[in-house]
Amino acid sequence: MSAEIICVGTELLLGDILNSNSQFLAQQLAKLGIPHYYQTVVGDNPERLKQVIEIAISRANILIFTGGLGPTPDDLTCETIADFFGAPLIERSEIIEDITQKFAQRGRVMSPTNRKQALIPQGAEVLPNPTGTAPGIIWQPRPDITIFTFPGVPSEMHRMWQETAVPFLQSQGWGKEIIYSRSLRFWGIGESALAEKVSSYFNLPNPTVAPYAGKGEVRLRISAKANSAAAAEELIAPVEKQLKEIAGLDCYGADNDTLASVVGELLRSQEETVSVAESCTGGGLGQMFTEIAGSSDYFWGGVISYDNSAKIRLLGVNPKDLDKFGAVSATVAEQMALGVKSRLETTWGLSITGIAGPGGGTEIKPVGLVYIGVAGPNDEVKSFEYRFGTIRERWFIRHLSACTALDLLRRRLLTM
Amino acid sequence: MSAEIICVGTELLLGDILNSNSQFLAQQLAKLGIPHYYQTVVGDNPERLKQVIEIAISRANILIFTGGLGPTPDDLTCETIADFFGAPLIERSEIIEDITQKFAQRGRVMSPTNRKQALIPQGAEVLPNPTGTAPGIIWQPRPDITIFTFPGVPSEMHRMWQETAVPFLQSQGWGKEIIYSRSLRFWGIGESALAEKVSSYFNLPNPTVAPYAGKGEVRLRISAKANSAAAAEELIAPVEKQLKEIAGLDCYGADNDTLASVVGELLRSQEETVSVAESCTGGGLGQMFTEIAGSSDYFWGGVISYDNSAKIRLLGVNPKDLDKFGAVSATVAEQMALGVKSRLETTWGLSITGIAGPGGGTEIKPVGLVYIGVAGPNDEVKSFEYRFGTIRERWFIRHLSACTALDLLRRRLLTM
Repeated sequence: MSAEIICVGTELLLGDILNSNSQFLAQQLAKLGIPHYYQTVVGDNPERLKQVIEIAISRANILIFTGGLGPTPDDLTCETIADFFGAPLIERSEIIEDITQKFAQRGRVMSPTNRKQALIPQGAEVLPNPTGTAPGIIWQPRPDITIFTFPGVPSEMHRMWQETAVPFLQSQGWGKEIIYSRSLRFWGIGESALAEKVSSYFNLPNPTVAPYAGKGEVRLRISAKANSAAAAEELIAPVEKQLKEIAGLDCYGADNDTLASVVGELLRSQEETVSVAESCTGGGLGQMFTEIAGSSDYFWGGVISYDNSAKIRLLGVNPKDLDKFGAVSATVAEQMALGVKSRLETTWGLSITGIAGPGGGTEIKPVGLVYIGVAGPNDEVKSFEYRFGTIRERWFIRHLSACTALDLLRRRLLTM
Repeated sequence: MSAEIICVGTELLLGDILNSNSQFLAQQLAKLGIPHYYQTVVGDNPERLKQVIEIAISRANILIFTGGLGPTPDDLTCETIADFFGAPLIERSEIIEDITQKFAQRGRVMSPTNRKQALIPQGAEVLPNPTGTAPGIIWQPRPDITIFTFPGVPSEMHRMWQETAVPFLQSQGWGKEIIYSRSLRFWGIGESALAEKVSSYFNLPNPTVAPYAGKGEVRLRISAKANSAAAAEELIAPVEKQLKEIAGLDCYGADNDTLASVVGELLRSQEETVSVAESCTGGGLGQMFTEIAGSSDYFWGGVISYDNSAKIRLLGVNPKDLDKFGAVSATVAEQMALGVKSRLETTWGLSITGIAGPGGGTEIKPVGLVYIGVAGPNDEVKSFEYRFGTIRERWFIRHLSACTALDLLRRRLLTM
């Protein structure tokens, strides 16, 4: 028994949209322990879609379709599947009522094109769509084949999956043997350097350990197969402990932890507060802090001192030093950090000033040069120089700058 | 002749990473006018990968692989392809040298595992990887089949594609008949409302017009098939003009325009400046402005007034009004906008204060309630109330808030 994910939509073939649905479904299948070896993307084309179904039923038993359930003429998924298995389409009155109601709520009348969405293969079960007009189906056209269809809109698909597909699959006995995994997250160490440190773990059978890298951070994914989450966690715990010991401070958290959430928890537990002074990141550091609900407990705000006048007026940076050392300098970074800390009366002040590029670089101060200031108790202040490189893109230099600032504070908080 | 994109990696089947490579390649193939009807994802498993190749060569002539070129044992793409076509692997000394050099630059010695990356099928051409250790290949194992392999790391893959694959494909005659397209971007109108206004355009043969929606914005994609970009643009221009006339102010730009870049150009052309005061967005609006290189010409900075103390100290918001009306109120939004505008002496001041949730909502002030202030010349100030809904997620409410603030300033600048 295994599943195949089939995403239908010419917009995927044109690269108009990112295929986040297949990632979501892949994660969900792993959680339920449903093996899944292939994902296919095909356009809104009945003939090709039929060929894809032909191949899929030869190598999988659970076919999960997303996309092509809309009211427009190019939405053909449901009728093509019905046609492939030779089942007639039946108009389901409850769907008509549901759609009519949804239009009514918005003070509108159902357009005739939406009628199409009420056509379901004979014998299929309707997968209600609470937030949209396109319903899905659960259908077993043959005893050995189960078909799910979902709309392409991720938010609608996620909810329908959770509320109807998951219970159905569990009723079929899935979710007993599960693949449970945990991702350890690292900052301040490269993938190969980390891989060499922990290489002996890459050959473990259960749990398995595998490295991934991206956006300046490295992860180690520990995956265990077991009959329950608890049993899987028991397999994972000792390996996690050992990996953390090997990595030391370079491991900042796991799974959904972010540098900002980890720093936030440290500040909360120590009843301390932080403020930021951002130049080249322009608000990105503040955004990372405030992505976390409840961050107002420790994040008090900051200053986006993009223009020098803002550095002087809102942070009290010394104009003479701006002239003498330049906006991108250790001195200015330290004055920014102290300035925002004192003005907002926080325990910590974090500052970032640098050249994100692509323009603005010089021989002495190239693109990627960034100074980060950390001001703390008793107005102690330190600055750190980074050269994130001239070939990196603007967004990446900004991302590395904000993450590194968080990481510096994290390490400082852990070594007080 | 058509292409198939094959992404190899168990991490894709586990949902650990989002498959952005297939979107990039899809866009690139469309640009070159190379038909492309299928995308396949398969794990790091030689047998299944061979089955995928078997299917792919039966329906496509250009096979583009990404992933599985790394030094670790589970990276099997290149040797599996060679094995499928029965070609021996040859160690290429130039690759060994290249990798050795790259390690040397980082003051390190090449680890023996990397030797593996120098094994290339006999007769294949090496696709150099300027920024990473994993080279790709261009190989015609059979006259009718062309194979490309790329590493899974997007930045490495993009560069290799542009520098080597594109010229090769052009030398093969591709890129003559091209699909050229333009996406008009809209803010402040829903997909169905816009679709109804322009429905007659959805039946055009060439160029075609199709709507897409996501993250609160709607797009109309105009795609033309022609022998040159110029010819395609000639087909697109009149349709674009008509669609813009129908949509009016709701159309804010096209293609890579963002609300921030469009507002930025308006400010630049009018030699005006802007500053921001952010509460619930916590720096997100500033980040949007500063994502654009050169934004320092018109974006001077701002204040992240997350805590009320920051609103009072850095923006001069009246404490009495904070008590009386609350931080999330029209009055406070207006004082924030005026406060930052006067402190940074900019032409415009934009402010956002709201409840991003999930917590913090009340009967009278539910999650999703957001006030946006726009302060302008002669200290005129207006505030706008939005109810972005209690079911939306925190990130989305924050995103809608920042985009709406940009859109309000855009409309104001266009109607002065």
